[in-house]
Amino acid sequence: MPVSGRIGKQSFVFDTRPAVLGAASVVGKKEGEGPLKERFDRIVEDAYNGEVSWEKAESRLIRDCFELACSKTGVSPSALDLVCSGDLLNQCVSSAFALKDSGSPYLGLYGACSTIAEALMLAAMCVDAGFARRSCAVTGSHFCSAERQYRFPLEYGGQRTPTSQWTVTGAGAVIVGKRHGGVHLRCATPGRIVDAGIKDMSNMGAAMAPAAFDTLCAHFADTGRAPEDYDAIFTGDLGAVGHDLLESMFREQGVELGLRYMDCGVLIYDLRTQEVGAGGSGCGCSASVLAGHILPAMLDGVWKRVLFAATGALLSPTSAQQGSSIPGICHAMVLERED
Amino acid sequence: MPVSGRIGKQSFVFDTRPAVLGAASVVGKKEGEGPLKERFDRIVEDAYNGEVSWEKAESRLIRDCFELACSKTGVSPSALDLVCSGDLLNQCVSSAFALKDSGSPYLGLYGACSTIAEALMLAAMCVDAGFARRSCAVTGSHFCSAERQYRFPLEYGGQRTPTSQWTVTGAGAVIVGKRHGGVHLRCATPGRIVDAGIKDMSNMGAAMAPAAFDTLCAHFADTGRAPEDYDAIFTGDLGAVGHDLLESMFREQGVELGLRYMDCGVLIYDLRTQEVGAGGSGCGCSASVLAGHILPAMLDGVWKRVLFAATGALLSPTSAQQGSSIPGICHAMVLERED
Repeated sequence: MPVSGRIGKQSFVFDTRPAVLGAASVVGKKEGEGPLKERFDRIVEDAYNGEVSWEKAESRLIRDCFELACSKTGVSPSALDLVCSGDLLNQCVSSAFALKDSGSPYLGLYGACSTIAEALMLAAMCVDAGFARRSCAVTGSHFCSAERQYRFPLEYGGQRTPTSQWTVTGAGAVIVGKRHGGVHLRCATPGRIVDAGIKDMSNMGAAMAPAAFDTLCAHFADTGRAPEDYDAIFTGDLGAVGHDLLESMFREQGVELGLRYMDCGVLIYDLRTQEVGAGGSGCGCSASVLAGHILPAMLDGVWKRVLFAATGALLSPTSAQQGSSIPGICHAMVLERED
Repeated sequence: MPVSGRIGKQSFVFDTRPAVLGAASVVGKKEGEGPLKERFDRIVEDAYNGEVSWEKAESRLIRDCFELACSKTGVSPSALDLVCSGDLLNQCVSSAFALKDSGSPYLGLYGACSTIAEALMLAAMCVDAGFARRSCAVTGSHFCSAERQYRFPLEYGGQRTPTSQWTVTGAGAVIVGKRHGGVHLRCATPGRIVDAGIKDMSNMGAAMAPAAFDTLCAHFADTGRAPEDYDAIFTGDLGAVGHDLLESMFREQGVELGLRYMDCGVLIYDLRTQEVGAGGSGCGCSASVLAGHILPAMLDGVWKRVLFAATGALLSPTSAQQGSSIPGICHAMVLERED
């Protein structure tokens, strides 16, 4: 792989190798009972998170996670040259309200559940190019605010199909800057929008898997790498349905992703016992798994080179009600531990 | 002003001076009857724009504008390394659906009415740093879809207060790349979120003016420039109320913005005859005025150095109904004509 600049059709290598200076994760009660419960920095038992509405609870989750990442890293919020954030709420209000008092320049993003990868890519680009000395990527989601906005009032107690996913109550924040050693951001493949014609709002995995396939194929072609060049490949949040679909799409091409391939939406819950359908979703899913599980495990020596490919479904309740399909997107980032 | 890199607290200079390769504007009937009617590339008389819903009409407006910018510039959509876009609809669906078949990597943004400045800044950053050879910033809005989502059903015929603004039906697209001559992107000041405590959803000008003041003050401090170093300064879309507020905020500091200061929301309509309250707003307002009016006028020799500072109000109907204030944001870009 070349050492810097654009490579192939849609990837680029970060010349200066921006580093992860620190990260934090804050999750809700259900996530705090899942397989990764020991990995998160903080578990919030109260669904209202001390606020008076679920939307404000989500916003506070993001703010608390952002502030925790800053304090863990020893960087004051005002020392950040850029904060990249977004969320699932209409007009991305939970991130805007979470960060309105940070004093940092703010880039609002919308990439649905792929937002943490888009934010991390922009945070790394700005540090790599010298536009920022330190930047932050942060996002989150909340089960209750997402259900109310996308599906049904919680009180209605609607039944869920087995392919549906469970919006994670959680947030993840990553602070990027210059440092030698630890986890470095080496390469990015921003994704194209892929519309496979799926119209079932309860099967986001099927809607997003083709986008993950498109971006990963572009990444492998651009870099000349294969899945086995990575110690681990994470998508998020395809859930169990999308995970298996992506595996089979690669298998049809004669490529085995193998055990190195995992999905953040599958990892965050116990799919046998936690009644979450096909697994987790929401901006906070990949974000909290990245900040709480993947980055610490890389520092612990579990994996050295990781491909992190967060996925998003670009729909709204209105577009779905008007009969439109659900386009997907996936942005991929290469993370490498350097000693 | 230094020639490259970060300057001051929150600004940076584009070392390689990315150029505007081309631009396009498409607007609706009302905008096509306003003072800038001769400036736009295309005027769409049908509010449905040949589609079956206002949301789809908005999406098609953005797609048509994007494709027109590509064809005017002689760049095929697939030759763009990055498209930066966003809009006001829930989950930014109009831009996602507009660009889903473009074949270009896509960065979804949410900056409310400031989105075109955020998109242009990212498009310029990516070209400047070598992450993209050619990029596109595009956004739009539609009066009918915005009214339905933010305010009342159009059929209700609700009265509007004099401070309220009229969402522009329109879109603007700018293609950025490397070229010598024409309009170049020289410097950017990404904005911080500023919350002045305004809670009146019908007075966005008052909510956004403090953010414009904050970003412009940072820009002048960072660059060592004053308003008189610019031939023209555009905000958008503060409307008449926000325009006058911003003037008075600077006047209190002993700074006269003078006649060089204009607002895109004031320029796009005839405020005396078109019954638009305090003026235009929406992602399509600054975008269509930039692409249709400002950039062509710069090429015509009207202005050589322009400060373009688009503003956004970071609210949702839900946040407003829950009694939250309306934070604002403003991102500023320096445009310079070079011969």
